[in-house]
Amino acid sequence: MKKLINDPFDMVEEMVDGFISANDDIVKRVGRRSIARLESPIPNKVAIVVGGGSGHLPAFAGYVGSGMADAAAFGNVFASPPAKPIIEAALACDSGAGVVFIYGNYAGDCLNFDRAQDTCREMGHDVESVVMNDDVASAPSSDALRRRGIGGMLWVYQIAGAKAETLASLGEVVEIAHRANENTRTIGVGLSSCIVPANGKATFALADDEIEVGLGIHGEPGMKRQKVAPVDEIIEEMFAQLMADLDYRNQRVALSINGLGGTPAEELFVVYRKVKALCDAHGITIAHKAVGEFVTALEMAGASISITRLDLEMEILLNAPVNTCMFKKLQRESSSA
Amino acid sequence: MKKLINDPFDMVEEMVDGFISANDDIVKRVGRRSIARLESPIPNKVAIVVGGGSGHLPAFAGYVGSGMADAAAFGNVFASPPAKPIIEAALACDSGAGVVFIYGNYAGDCLNFDRAQDTCREMGHDVESVVMNDDVASAPSSDALRRRGIGGMLWVYQIAGAKAETLASLGEVVEIAHRANENTRTIGVGLSSCIVPANGKATFALADDEIEVGLGIHGEPGMKRQKVAPVDEIIEEMFAQLMADLDYRNQRVALSINGLGGTPAEELFVVYRKVKALCDAHGITIAHKAVGEFVTALEMAGASISITRLDLEMEILLNAPVNTCMFKKLQRESSSA
Repeated sequence: MKKLINDPFDMVEEMVDGFISANDDIVKRVGRRSIARLESPIPNKVAIVVGGGSGHLPAFAGYVGSGMADAAAFGNVFASPPAKPIIEAALACDSGAGVVFIYGNYAGDCLNFDRAQDTCREMGHDVESVVMNDDVASAPSSDALRRRGIGGMLWVYQIAGAKAETLASLGEVVEIAHRANENTRTIGVGLSSCIVPANGKATFALADDEIEVGLGIHGEPGMKRQKVAPVDEIIEEMFAQLMADLDYRNQRVALSINGLGGTPAEELFVVYRKVKALCDAHGITIAHKAVGEFVTALEMAGASISITRLDLEMEILLNAPVNTCMFKKLQRESSSA
Repeated sequence: MKKLINDPFDMVEEMVDGFISANDDIVKRVGRRSIARLESPIPNKVAIVVGGGSGHLPAFAGYVGSGMADAAAFGNVFASPPAKPIIEAALACDSGAGVVFIYGNYAGDCLNFDRAQDTCREMGHDVESVVMNDDVASAPSSDALRRRGIGGMLWVYQIAGAKAETLASLGEVVEIAHRANENTRTIGVGLSSCIVPANGKATFALADDEIEVGLGIHGEPGMKRQKVAPVDEIIEEMFAQLMADLDYRNQRVALSINGLGGTPAEELFVVYRKVKALCDAHGITIAHKAVGEFVTALEMAGASISITRLDLEMEILLNAPVNTCMFKKLQRESSSA
């Protein structure tokens, strides 16, 4: 294992120190493993708290800032944060308007965010939770509540974050976060494994000519292993899975092409080109788009496609500016809506 | 070789198509391998044209947009663009105020940008060139004109770009681009090779326990190979090389930690933490900072550190907003200056 780290067991601690220092114009430390926007708590604004395992940057801490999340809790690599940093994050940003936890559907995260929610409620804070489950490969649609949350968070956070910036009520922010999640689907493809620092070796093995469609962001098994193929064929298959799950035809959507950490941006644009052609062929209008690394799996090679079916409110909310640690977007004219 | 591509020889073409489509709110195609800002040419504004081989995104096309470059030419993977797309880029953005080519010091780029400059001048355009040579590992300081250009472009482009946005003259933009380059030094470390698609195999080999300090962004040999070590030790050595080359003590600087493509962002923040501590120890004030992927080498693992010694003008220029295809920054209050 070759990584730019010291002792693997110090990596997260040192990463958090560096992250906060590098982003001290946007965030402050509010606990050993928790951060919040500098301005927190913001009067009358519902606060959004995110978090999850490390190894996925920009998720989750990278999305703290105006227009997305108010605070985040860091877990160890590929491990949920305990309840404590989640509680610290929530207390730091609750202005009294309430807090929404938005996180991915993983056993550890569900357990710890639920515990944190219980504790915060006992302390008199109004806390609700929205659990994201956009990964179509992780369970059949008949069992969608078992699905994991992955790359779709880019759109769910932005839609909920923009709504919260309008000083909407807790109920309204929760409702639109649910709505964004319900209209979002993601599918990924993995080309290589990653190495968890404290393990020191690859999480799984893929043969030199194998890829795995539907692979999870911690190396969870996907739908199938197959021989490497021209990317257009792979994308057609992935796109078909998304379309089979949610009818995007003739809809307006937000589309993101996400790199898993070890895939050059050049390849992501090759992927975008094919997905755009498929959207065109199905009458799908890409109203918002993003190509880059949004939810990674350390240095795993591969990509995921997330598509959110937009209604007018969501589409307009996505015109709002975003200024977070690792994702920035300028205000856009709403004439496109 | 596993990559998200079709025929390797179609990769650049398909990447350019996807890039332009994904960024159609910022750029337009002005040739088969050239793009320019939508608003080009902008009256009275000196235009900045960049370019180089593909495989380095966000460099170079990713920096086209307000506050940085006006146009860019795409080369093949790790190969200079020919003169033609450079000329197309220049003609598309020259308002009559003149054009500055800013590119890295590589034989192919020098040859083709010079040819393009000659042709544009013959056509009556005022074109100057600034060649970046920030890589301290690529030649001794006594032979600095042989040095290559790498990660420092993030700061050189922003400083020159912000100056050009003030409608400064061609001479003024050229002068500050030179000044930014002369005050910028970069050093990299490579942990693994990359695979050029059309070659299909690794460009070079590093043993499982080896790293290479000073490695170039195409795999050019560095200063030395050594055993992998705790990152703090590696960074101390790299920082010492930068300090030996330019006296940053008690200066205000812009600092970037750049990932080469295959290194998780988490590691880059671990690196930032150490560089920040070394800056503190030397009385260096980090006035501007950035951590991310700015100049990559396909999926190479590794990182580079770039430091620009700032004067008051450069520091204030770096407060300007940037909205390019792959790098965005909000306006910052200039109180820090």
